[in-house]
Amino acid sequence: MNKIFIIGVGLIGGSFALDIKKLNPECTIYGIDKNEAHLEEAIALKVIDKSAQFEEVQHADLVILSIPVDGAIAVLPKVLDLVSDNTIVFDVGSTKEDICAQVKSHPKRRNYLAVHPIAGTEYSGPKAALHGLYKNKTNIICEVEETAFKLQEKALKLFTDLGMRIRYMNPQAHDKHIAYVSHLSHISAFMLGKTVIDKEKNERDIFDMAGSGFASTVRLAKSSPAMWTPIFKQNKTNVIETLNEYINNLKHFKSLMENEDFEAVFNEMETTNHIKDILNGIQ
Amino acid sequence: MNKIFIIGVGLIGGSFALDIKKLNPECTIYGIDKNEAHLEEAIALKVIDKSAQFEEVQHADLVILSIPVDGAIAVLPKVLDLVSDNTIVFDVGSTKEDICAQVKSHPKRRNYLAVHPIAGTEYSGPKAALHGLYKNKTNIICEVEETAFKLQEKALKLFTDLGMRIRYMNPQAHDKHIAYVSHLSHISAFMLGKTVIDKEKNERDIFDMAGSGFASTVRLAKSSPAMWTPIFKQNKTNVIETLNEYINNLKHFKSLMENEDFEAVFNEMETTNHIKDILNGIQ
Repeated sequence: MNKIFIIGVGLIGGSFALDIKKLNPECTIYGIDKNEAHLEEAIALKVIDKSAQFEEVQHADLVILSIPVDGAIAVLPKVLDLVSDNTIVFDVGSTKEDICAQVKSHPKRRNYLAVHPIAGTEYSGPKAALHGLYKNKTNIICEVEETAFKLQEKALKLFTDLGMRIRYMNPQAHDKHIAYVSHLSHISAFMLGKTVIDKEKNERDIFDMAGSGFASTVRLAKSSPAMWTPIFKQNKTNVIETLNEYINNLKHFKSLMENEDFEAVFNEMETTNHIKDILNGIQ
Repeated sequence: MNKIFIIGVGLIGGSFALDIKKLNPECTIYGIDKNEAHLEEAIALKVIDKSAQFEEVQHADLVILSIPVDGAIAVLPKVLDLVSDNTIVFDVGSTKEDICAQVKSHPKRRNYLAVHPIAGTEYSGPKAALHGLYKNKTNIICEVEETAFKLQEKALKLFTDLGMRIRYMNPQAHDKHIAYVSHLSHISAFMLGKTVIDKEKNERDIFDMAGSGFASTVRLAKSSPAMWTPIFKQNKTNVIETLNEYINNLKHFKSLMENEDFEAVFNEMETTNHIKDILNGIQ
């Protein structure tokens, strides 16, 4: 793979670019981004080798589509329209059902692999790109059987070289479960941040009282609204289901406190302590 | 200060013991704990020098009361009954109103300083004790004016030597604001953990999909129920207020999603991104 195109040179695309270049120093990494400043920054930081026009993806060996999920749905068919039979195209979005449906009948469907690397930070843009971001991370692949064998093989070799663990799922199961283990965490953090900021807006000193526990719980509230709004839109039904369950659990906890049933409060927490075992292995 | 008594040789008391010993190698650290295994472990780990009987606090220069807040309220008057006029006694609990009220009229009130170091991890017991835990951490002191001058001075010198930043508050303000920046985060994390575990209990594979974002947001759900239940009990009114506001914010976010008002969803997140600036300085 000599010509690698990264559409969207932010944290996710930029981190792929850095590691692919390290694996294949002779390849050329082309960046496409509607944000000119990001392209310049990505070149200056040596995240990409050069910028490119969209039409040039016709020459690509690999195209990584790493833009917000609303953009990805619009752009993916146009990429597939242009690429050659030997080009592998994958997206990296946090929703998979809509994008798979979007290209279901595309004549080049077999050039596309639906991918969700479970990796990232709360930062964004090319300067957030990191070497080794994908090492030991889970990579979820949906509808693998819809992709041409030889292109599956190329992509899997890349993911293995990057040190990723592969998991196969269907897009519906992916979107349902990722709502619990990822999307809900973001809303939980954003609303925790909002609750505290609203209350304490006139008392800036108060944040001196906040410790690492608050910082950890609210960390995801630093995330990019431009990235997350379309995720919530595409995964609306599943996310609303998780929110209903989360709100019900919070209300139940509150009612136990109101009824002074602190034995039950203790039990709620003790049962959930089991999360320790689950989190082993997630850094 | 030669004779230091730590009542409760866990994460918080043990971490004080480690750093005090480092600052004053000639002092003797005595541990008191109703858990015999913790005492033995603390000695084996050199967190304390030896165990002691409760009555021996009469010989103490400094007593640190680092047990859950329900125990602290019961034990503090008994400690004050025993100590000499030159002994400084401080607690470290996450609630301050009840404990200050409890000893308000105690004849030895001026030997007590109400302290809340904003430091800790989600782990507990003597093996969780850490060197340097308190460096650059905030230490909230309540009702400082109720403590004898010379004992205030001794305690402040210790906190300064440990590298802590001191903040003075009244107990009512402390309990109200700490409910927002600490207690609510814990419930938010516990209920997030519960929601995901309940949903996914039969699908263990699903946790392979969880990344560092989920791990960070749910981290506090590893915390000790024995420590947190009495905190929620003592700070019930304030915590319920924070829960009401948090639940209302979550419901509002959900209604925006249900109404497909994704511009407002974006704005909710963008406004809260401001948490970035607030978190600067909290590690």
